[in-house]
Amino acid sequence: MPADIQPQFPRPLLAPDADRGRAMRFDEPLRLDCGRMLSPFTLAYRTDGELNRARSNAILVCHALSGDQFVAGTHPVTARAGWWQTMVGPGKPIDTGRYCVICVNVLGGCMGSTGPADIDPATGKPYALAFPVITIADMVRAQAMLMDALGIARLLSVTGGSMGGMQALEWAARFPQRVASAMPLATAAGHTAQNIALHEVGRQAIMADPDWRGGNYLSEGVRPERGLAVARMIGHISYLSEAALAQKFGRALQDRDTLSYGFGADFRVESYLRHQGSSFVARFDANSYLYITRAMDYFDLAAPHGGNLSAAFAGANDTRFLVVSFTSDWLFPTAENVRIAEALTAAGAAVEFQELDSSKGHDAFLLHEPELFDSVRRFLGSVAAEHGIG
Amino acid sequence: MPADIQPQFPRPLLAPDADRGRAMRFDEPLRLDCGRMLSPFTLAYRTDGELNRARSNAILVCHALSGDQFVAGTHPVTARAGWWQTMVGPGKPIDTGRYCVICVNVLGGCMGSTGPADIDPATGKPYALAFPVITIADMVRAQAMLMDALGIARLLSVTGGSMGGMQALEWAARFPQRVASAMPLATAAGHTAQNIALHEVGRQAIMADPDWRGGNYLSEGVRPERGLAVARMIGHISYLSEAALAQKFGRALQDRDTLSYGFGADFRVESYLRHQGSSFVARFDANSYLYITRAMDYFDLAAPHGGNLSAAFAGANDTRFLVVSFTSDWLFPTAENVRIAEALTAAGAAVEFQELDSSKGHDAFLLHEPELFDSVRRFLGSVAAEHGIG
Repeated sequence: MPADIQPQFPRPLLAPDADRGRAMRFDEPLRLDCGRMLSPFTLAYRTDGELNRARSNAILVCHALSGDQFVAGTHPVTARAGWWQTMVGPGKPIDTGRYCVICVNVLGGCMGSTGPADIDPATGKPYALAFPVITIADMVRAQAMLMDALGIARLLSVTGGSMGGMQALEWAARFPQRVASAMPLATAAGHTAQNIALHEVGRQAIMADPDWRGGNYLSEGVRPERGLAVARMIGHISYLSEAALAQKFGRALQDRDTLSYGFGADFRVESYLRHQGSSFVARFDANSYLYITRAMDYFDLAAPHGGNLSAAFAGANDTRFLVVSFTSDWLFPTAENVRIAEALTAAGAAVEFQELDSSKGHDAFLLHEPELFDSVRRFLGSVAAEHGIG
Repeated sequence: MPADIQPQFPRPLLAPDADRGRAMRFDEPLRLDCGRMLSPFTLAYRTDGELNRARSNAILVCHALSGDQFVAGTHPVTARAGWWQTMVGPGKPIDTGRYCVICVNVLGGCMGSTGPADIDPATGKPYALAFPVITIADMVRAQAMLMDALGIARLLSVTGGSMGGMQALEWAARFPQRVASAMPLATAAGHTAQNIALHEVGRQAIMADPDWRGGNYLSEGVRPERGLAVARMIGHISYLSEAALAQKFGRALQDRDTLSYGFGADFRVESYLRHQGSSFVARFDANSYLYITRAMDYFDLAAPHGGNLSAAFAGANDTRFLVVSFTSDWLFPTAENVRIAEALTAAGAAVEFQELDSSKGHDAFLLHEPELFDSVRRFLGSVAAEHGIG
C-alpha cells in the first residue's frame, strides 16, 4: 500500500516556507528493465491546481535531465522560480485554474525521489553505483504507480521537453489507454549518437574527478564538484544555439576593458558558464547525473520493434498529439521530431506537428516563446473540450 | 642570428627512422602581443618538396589546434601518417613535386617549438603558466622570422583549416606583400562565443584535474591525463557533425549484443571517444592545449578596426584568396567564412568563395573531399602560372 510521506530534500532549504510538495512511498517492488527489483522506493512530486471530481483534468508534466518536480511556484531548495513558470500557473497556457498539474521527480533523481544518493537498505549506506541503472520506461512505470495511488486512471495530457518529451512518448507507447493526449516537445524517440557522445563526455568528467571516489563520495564526505561543473558546462553549451550565444554574449569581456593574457574568465561567456557550473553543483547529485544521462542514452522506442517506430505507437490511435520542434535546436533537431510525428501518423494517431522559429536553441521550450504558448493553450483547450472539461 | 638545430621531441619516437624535420633557434627576442619579450625561442618545422632558385614556390601550411608540423610523411612520435596526407605530397593537390611546402609547429606547441613544457631560462624549470599567453599574430610573426631565415621573401600561398586558417588570414592581414595567395579553410576571422565556450570547458576540465598541479605537473612528475582526455573528447564531438556521428556510429553497440545497464562503453561512439581521448594524451601537452585554445579565443581580426573586418585586409588587394566552408561544419559555419570573403572583396582582393557540400562536419577539411582537392589544385595552379612557376 503506497503511503503519503513528507518529502525529504538532500540540501538545505533556501526557501523553507515554499511549498515542498508531497511524496509517496511504495513498498510494492518495481521490476526494472535491467531485471532487478527496486523496493522500497519514493516518488516526490508537486501538484498545482485542483483535481476535479471525475479525476479527468490531470496533466502530467515530465521534467528534463536537470529539472525536478518544482515546475511552478518557488523552489524550496534554490529559492528560485519553478522551471516552467512561463507555461504552468493560473491563466498560463497550462492553466492551473482549469487543470491539475502533477510533476514528479524522476526515479534516479535527487530531489526526494529514490536515487543513487539514497540509503541502500541492503547496506545501510548510500546506493552510489549499487543503484540499478534505470530507463525512461522505469521512470514512467513508477509514475503510473503514482497515478494509480492518486486514483487517476487517465491523464488528460502528458507533456515535457527533452527528456520530459521522452517520458511523454513512453507513456503514449506503454499506456496509450491512460493518455488522452500528449505533447512531446523538442525531443526524440531515440537518443542520437551525438547526444550519447555529449553525455559520455560529461560522465567522464565526473568520473575523472578524484572526489568521485568510484561513486562513493557521499560515504567519504566529499563531492565531485569540479567534474559535475564541467559536465554541466558541456550540457549548457548544447542547450543553447550559436546564434543565442552570439546575441547574448558575442565576444564581450567580463568586468574588464582589455584582454588579461591569462586564463581567467576574460569573456562574459566564460564567466556565465562557470556560474552555471557552480550553481548546478549546489543543487544536483553527481551520481544522479550519471544515471539520468544513461537513461536518456538507452532510450530507443523503435528498438524492440526492429526499428519500426510506428509499431511502438500501435495502441495510441485514440491519443491526440502535439509535437513541437525549434529551428535552432541542434540537440533534438526538427528531423527527430518529424520522425516522431510521422510514426504517430502511420500508427493512426491524430498528430499536429509544428516547427517553431526560434534562435534560442534547445532551451527554447523553457523560455518565453509566445508561439509555443499559443499552441499549447489551444491544443489543451481543444482536448479539454472534447473531454467535457470546463 | 637564427641557428639550425636538431629538433627535439618531448615524447619517445615510435618511428625513429622517420623524417624528423628541422628546427631553427632564434636568439633575437620576439615581442609578443601581451607585451612580453620571448627569447630565445625555437620553431620546429618540416619541408616537403624543393625550394626553386627564385625561392618563389614556397607554400606555408599552418596547422590546427591539435596538429603539428608533420603534415605529410610518417610522424616520428606517433608513427602515423601526416595529418594532411590527402592534400600534401607528390602529385597531390598541394603538389610537392612542384611546390616547397613548409609546415611549422606553432609557438606554444609541444612538438619541438617553444611552448609551456620547455625550460624557462629564468628558472631552469618548465615554463608552465609562466609561459606568456601567445596570440595567432605572435605565431605568425614567429613564422615570418623563420621565412626570413630561410630567405623566403614572399609565399606563393599560405593555407590551413580551422586555426590554420586563422594564421593564413593573419598572414594576409599583417604581411600582405609577403603572400601571393591565401587559402583559409573552414575558419573564422574572430572566434565565436560558442567556440570560446567549448574551449573554456576543455580548459576547465584540464585545470580541474588534480594532476594539473596549478600547471606545474611536469616539475612534479605527473600529467593531467584525465582532464586532457575529457577536453579532447569535447573537441572531437565539435569537429564532427550529427550526420557524421549518425552514419559512423548511430546507436550501434561495441563488442556486445545487449545493453550492460552500467557505465562502461556500451555504445561504439563512447568507445571511439574514449580512444580519441587516450591517444591524444600520449602525444599532446596539457598546458599547450590551454595556450593554443586561448590564442584562438583571442583571435579577432576586426577588433583593432572597430569591428570593420575589411579594414584589416586593406593591404591585401594584391593577394588572391580561396575561401572554403563546409555545409555541415557547425564550429566554423559558412556564415563565418562568408564574412571573410565579403570583407576581402570589400578590401579589393580577388576572392573565390566555395561552400562545399559535406556531411563530415568541421573535420571535412582534413578528410577525403574530392571537391576540395579539385579547388585547391586548380587555384594553386592558376596562382603558380601567374607567377611563372612551372
